[in-house]
Amino acid sequence: MTEVISQRRARAADAALRERARAVIPGGMYGHLSVNGLPPEYPQFYERAKGGRVWDVDGNEYVDFMCSFGPNLLGHLHPAVEAAVAAQRARGDTMSGPGAVMVEAAELLTSRVAHADWAMFAKNGTDATTVAVMIARAATGRPIVLQAAGAYHGATPMFTFRADGVTPADRANFRFYTFNDLTSVQRALDEAAGQVAAVIVSPFRHDAGYDAELTDPAFARGLRELCDQAGAALIIDEVRAGFRMHDGGSWEPHGVAPDLSAWSKAIGNGYPVAAILGSARYAAAASQIFVTGSFWFQSVPMAAVLATLTALRDEDAVPAMIAAGTALREGIAREAAAAGVEISQTGPVQMPTLSFAGDGTGHDRAVAFCAAAAEHGAIFHPRHNWFVCAAHGDADVERAVDAAREGFRAVRARF
Amino acid sequence: MTEVISQRRARAADAALRERARAVIPGGMYGHLSVNGLPPEYPQFYERAKGGRVWDVDGNEYVDFMCSFGPNLLGHLHPAVEAAVAAQRARGDTMSGPGAVMVEAAELLTSRVAHADWAMFAKNGTDATTVAVMIARAATGRPIVLQAAGAYHGATPMFTFRADGVTPADRANFRFYTFNDLTSVQRALDEAAGQVAAVIVSPFRHDAGYDAELTDPAFARGLRELCDQAGAALIIDEVRAGFRMHDGGSWEPHGVAPDLSAWSKAIGNGYPVAAILGSARYAAAASQIFVTGSFWFQSVPMAAVLATLTALRDEDAVPAMIAAGTALREGIAREAAAAGVEISQTGPVQMPTLSFAGDGTGHDRAVAFCAAAAEHGAIFHPRHNWFVCAAHGDADVERAVDAAREGFRAVRARF
Repeated sequence: MTEVISQRRARAADAALRERARAVIPGGMYGHLSVNGLPPEYPQFYERAKGGRVWDVDGNEYVDFMCSFGPNLLGHLHPAVEAAVAAQRARGDTMSGPGAVMVEAAELLTSRVAHADWAMFAKNGTDATTVAVMIARAATGRPIVLQAAGAYHGATPMFTFRADGVTPADRANFRFYTFNDLTSVQRALDEAAGQVAAVIVSPFRHDAGYDAELTDPAFARGLRELCDQAGAALIIDEVRAGFRMHDGGSWEPHGVAPDLSAWSKAIGNGYPVAAILGSARYAAAASQIFVTGSFWFQSVPMAAVLATLTALRDEDAVPAMIAAGTALREGIAREAAAAGVEISQTGPVQMPTLSFAGDGTGHDRAVAFCAAAAEHGAIFHPRHNWFVCAAHGDADVERAVDAAREGFRAVRARF
Repeated sequence: MTEVISQRRARAADAALRERARAVIPGGMYGHLSVNGLPPEYPQFYERAKGGRVWDVDGNEYVDFMCSFGPNLLGHLHPAVEAAVAAQRARGDTMSGPGAVMVEAAELLTSRVAHADWAMFAKNGTDATTVAVMIARAATGRPIVLQAAGAYHGATPMFTFRADGVTPADRANFRFYTFNDLTSVQRALDEAAGQVAAVIVSPFRHDAGYDAELTDPAFARGLRELCDQAGAALIIDEVRAGFRMHDGGSWEPHGVAPDLSAWSKAIGNGYPVAAILGSARYAAAASQIFVTGSFWFQSVPMAAVLATLTALRDEDAVPAMIAAGTALREGIAREAAAAGVEISQTGPVQMPTLSFAGDGTGHDRAVAFCAAAAEHGAIFHPRHNWFVCAAHGDADVERAVDAAREGFRAVRARF
């Protein structure tokens, strides 16, 4: 730890880049990777990444428990993924048609995810949730979509939570229920009276700014029944959680199969790809809609999907993430107790959420904790769930727990 | 040419992949790269690509004048682009924050495109047009967008031309004008009475299924004036044409600056990236909206943008495409005349559109022409504009013209 502190370099390069960015990028940065709302200890710009670690542009090294907000599943520069990518890239990537790898990726995904009879590919999570909604609407001929209040399913006008640039018409066909509350789903279905095309749900409640909430298996089963009764499609938004929870669909352990599922982030270990999986019943509707993108058919990300899902299984990546996540959770609990700071740790251990007793919507204690942790070589987030990757080993967890200790000391000193 | 025919291999591998695809991909394929609506002579699956040529999974070689529908600008595996990509990939790509290359790409784009004071990055053209519309709405507080009837600006519910999976609300805030017709723009503005946020326009009319129509400079200038009078943003959708027409904004030769422009396809020479460029007046609105994507901040595509735009200028790529496109147009005209087939060639020579006198909406002659051309080693398209890349040299044009000769013979034989 002292080694970490002594090696720490000033952030001159990051500051210079932020200054240049303010001149040519609105607000200096935008979207979920902007650090505008985070303390100055966070780097905005990264130089390189390997395994579960990242280096900022000033050469500071961090154990990275944000994992690119999900895409880094097996570790940066995973040998098998990189080898598959390099081989495909030498042949062809963005061509005038897909490669054989697209079919192979569809075959592999449909063999891994129980409910899936077919696959379509896109580029980002928002593409996948949008396409799933379009398929449900095409299949049912109905307009309304129910989503859990506060859930994030993308950043187009249809889904985005911020009103700027969005018209009322964009959101006109969305209604809301409460996660884990079947009565609220039933009420929303009743109110929409036969007009519901789909209910979209996350594998667990992972709304930014709140404690995570695991899924009540009875809720999952009841949601399936309510969708069947209403003739609505059940869509699981696996974009954030997919393949970190389970080698397959996240609700398979609950015995619940959706009609459609939306995937992205981790499925290509950082290579840009999204997928929409569906049951045979929705295949005709999926072939009717017109959706496409210039880069949706790239061969390199398909090769990355094949290598990533193969390694996920061959290398027992989910158990590895559970082991690292468990050790991290235990270490954080230990350090919090030692510092006398009251915290909550929620969500699956592979996707941890940390909150502080006494924190309001400003998350002041969480911000102070994360600032000190960043200063001591670990990237966490005060308002968003974290991500563990399979490359996080004992040394990473140890270093992160050391950084967390500094975080709790900072909280205790200030509050 | 005889060499081409004799080397031609049966399409067993392609047929086998199509069969497998039908089992796991709705309709066997979807989107703009599906060959479902094309004759069986077209390959669906490609094995590799180099320069301006592609090879299908059966080993047949083609001069490819679709260029991945735009992304292939300099030629597949362009040395400088690949070197920049390999260097960046070894350091980091999808990290927990952007790299310095994002700022450098924003600086380069804003220095190359006259109207641009800032840049945002996304992944696909649809992202870019969607974000541009959101910014215009956030800036003006108005909902309505005017687009040219028949123009393609993306494939989300807001933009897509096919009704399946789309609700009336998704399209409620769009109104239409006729390309190159200022009176129709004025009428649409009047009818929307102070509610118009933006007018979106393509650099020239390149609607699929129709002859291309170049922009009347008076239309471009008049559109700028009408937008100024109405307080609406002028958005140019450069996704398809950007950096193929001109090293800069496509309407710069007309002396017309938009407020916002949407870019993708060619700007990373096949690497997945899109950009939204804007004037200072729209920067505040751009920083207010919430848009993002898991892969929008990748460093590798930003490195590709830097290398692509540098090579575009250093290697005189636009003049090279004009030279190859001019030779192709002349060769096609010569072969059509020799075969006694009446055709129209429209659009810029770098983005050719070929149509046949007597063809209706089925484009039967164009389909027969393209089928024979594909059989003889050249990829064209019967309903969509083609794309020339800077790697297309004399041998490519010669081979394509040889294939076109076979195409015209087929048309003459059949019609």
